[in-house]
Amino acid sequence: MNNTRVLLKRRSEGVPRVEDFELVSTPAGVPATGELLCETLYLSLDPYLRGRISGRHISGAINAGDLMGGEAVSRVIESTSDQFKQGDIIAAHSGWQSRPVVEADTARPLNPELGPLSTLLGILGMPGLTAYAGMTRLAELQAGNTVVVSAASGPVGSMVGQIARLHGCRVVGIAGTAEKCRWTIEQAGFDHCINYKTETLRDGLSRACPDGIDVYFDNVGGDTLQACMEQLALGARVILCGLIAQYNTDEMPPGPNPAFIIKARAAVRGLVVYDHEDLRPEFEQRVSRWLKHGDIKYKEDCVDGLAAAPGLFCRLMRGENFGKAVVKVTE
Amino acid sequence: MNNTRVLLKRRSEGVPRVEDFELVSTPAGVPATGELLCETLYLSLDPYLRGRISGRHISGAINAGDLMGGEAVSRVIESTSDQFKQGDIIAAHSGWQSRPVVEADTARPLNPELGPLSTLLGILGMPGLTAYAGMTRLAELQAGNTVVVSAASGPVGSMVGQIARLHGCRVVGIAGTAEKCRWTIEQAGFDHCINYKTETLRDGLSRACPDGIDVYFDNVGGDTLQACMEQLALGARVILCGLIAQYNTDEMPPGPNPAFIIKARAAVRGLVVYDHEDLRPEFEQRVSRWLKHGDIKYKEDCVDGLAAAPGLFCRLMRGENFGKAVVKVTE
Repeated sequence: MNNTRVLLKRRSEGVPRVEDFELVSTPAGVPATGELLCETLYLSLDPYLRGRISGRHISGAINAGDLMGGEAVSRVIESTSDQFKQGDIIAAHSGWQSRPVVEADTARPLNPELGPLSTLLGILGMPGLTAYAGMTRLAELQAGNTVVVSAASGPVGSMVGQIARLHGCRVVGIAGTAEKCRWTIEQAGFDHCINYKTETLRDGLSRACPDGIDVYFDNVGGDTLQACMEQLALGARVILCGLIAQYNTDEMPPGPNPAFIIKARAAVRGLVVYDHEDLRPEFEQRVSRWLKHGDIKYKEDCVDGLAAAPGLFCRLMRGENFGKAVVKVTE
Repeated sequence: MNNTRVLLKRRSEGVPRVEDFELVSTPAGVPATGELLCETLYLSLDPYLRGRISGRHISGAINAGDLMGGEAVSRVIESTSDQFKQGDIIAAHSGWQSRPVVEADTARPLNPELGPLSTLLGILGMPGLTAYAGMTRLAELQAGNTVVVSAASGPVGSMVGQIARLHGCRVVGIAGTAEKCRWTIEQAGFDHCINYKTETLRDGLSRACPDGIDVYFDNVGGDTLQACMEQLALGARVILCGLIAQYNTDEMPPGPNPAFIIKARAAVRGLVVYDHEDLRPEFEQRVSRWLKHGDIKYKEDCVDGLAAAPGLFCRLMRGENFGKAVVKVTE
């Protein structure tokens, strides 16, 4: 029984290319005491991995020669731990490999009743929890608020907007294709979505938010953040979560002038999902219910097989994916 | 009876010069119904006035030919309002003039028992309330926190540091002369003060805040803000209050990269003192008591006569003043 793995062949310069990755196959490992041999079902690809390749992410660097990291949903094939038994479905940060050996202590049991297995990496997983923590803990949402979110059709952005909608807010998305914008409105129920590639973002924001932005959830940084900071309403809340605009650079570009924060008496907060693990049970129950009631929709960009993972990751980092990037692992 | 006034002769380019101002003398006005003829005792000079000269401050523009604005402590000479009587001491935004006519509705009665009259423009006035609101409402102070404040010997900065000290915090100031630094430590009881002109600010912060900065109160913006954002502790609170670094420019220079806020899970808030008027009674009682008990110290940079106001204002905008800039009006 082999374990197919994707390694980082070389540290990416700028936007990653498929040549930066390498597929290798070796015999699967044997679990020592307290370990699990697993079969990966779905692998999550997320923008923060680019920061790990640059050595800049808080979850640690991925260096040339290393296994690519990332969270996966797996089935336990063999267990030497009494925490899990064969057939259990788990989540673990086991990376881009088909048959990982996982320390039982680092695995999280999953309840497959919550929703389709792949959503446990998306709206019911880390991206969903990120959105949920931001909107319920940091955003101080009030019905009638105008909530703006960038990367609006992605798993974090689409959940941010839908949670805001379910709290009675007006939701304005920012996305980069007509198809993404249409999906956020027609499927996710956003009130409006600005296509920043065909419309000047500042003009779009002025039209969509005539009374200013009450809550801005930022997945992007860069000029998108700047434009939103210029149009904050008094007492606005800004949640800084992602930095897509700078993941592909080694530079730390400057940010918005502090005067925008003072003028709006805004509260700007940094969000890291790892701080909000305690919210997970409540989050899973509520989002699972919303999903089953049809209150929330999700979009996945799913490819088959680990060999396709580098290509999807590169599309993700070029902003060309549409929906949560997941790999269905079939090796 | 004449009214001596200082007008803005021309909009300052860069750092204001005394030639930008003009002293004129005209007969004092006659109060209409509901108005007060006053005699100015002390006039407050504050950095935000530079923003008004640029037309960029939320309290409105001061244009060429206009009376210079600012808050003053005055004595009522003649009243046509039943809210005030002759001899009352009031605060009003009556500007740089010796015998203003003030609408009674815009005047605030002062209690001269609180402290020396000039302090009602400083630690017991707007700068003091700014510091008090920031530290009691926005900073979420906890005993043992490391609190950093820039423009540390000024009326806002020195109060920020002293209020933090009275809450059991470690206080680190940032100032631009050895004399200012010495004063914050020896008189205001700061634990440390970094002279950013003789020491690299980043090195000074690393040494003074080995566990990072829990609270940063920013009066400055620019590179000082940048340096502090790089050394925030986890869960830090940043209060953005002043922008001395950019008051003399027409540009809006960029600010710190949002990654610093995310990394520290920081909360960055904008502070405008006008929002916190409701705190004033509590603030006045507490600070007056602290002042009388010798728990807080203050430093004034006081000149005599309105003719000296432009010179002091220019020194203030060059950072060459030491302590709260006030004009004792003797005309």
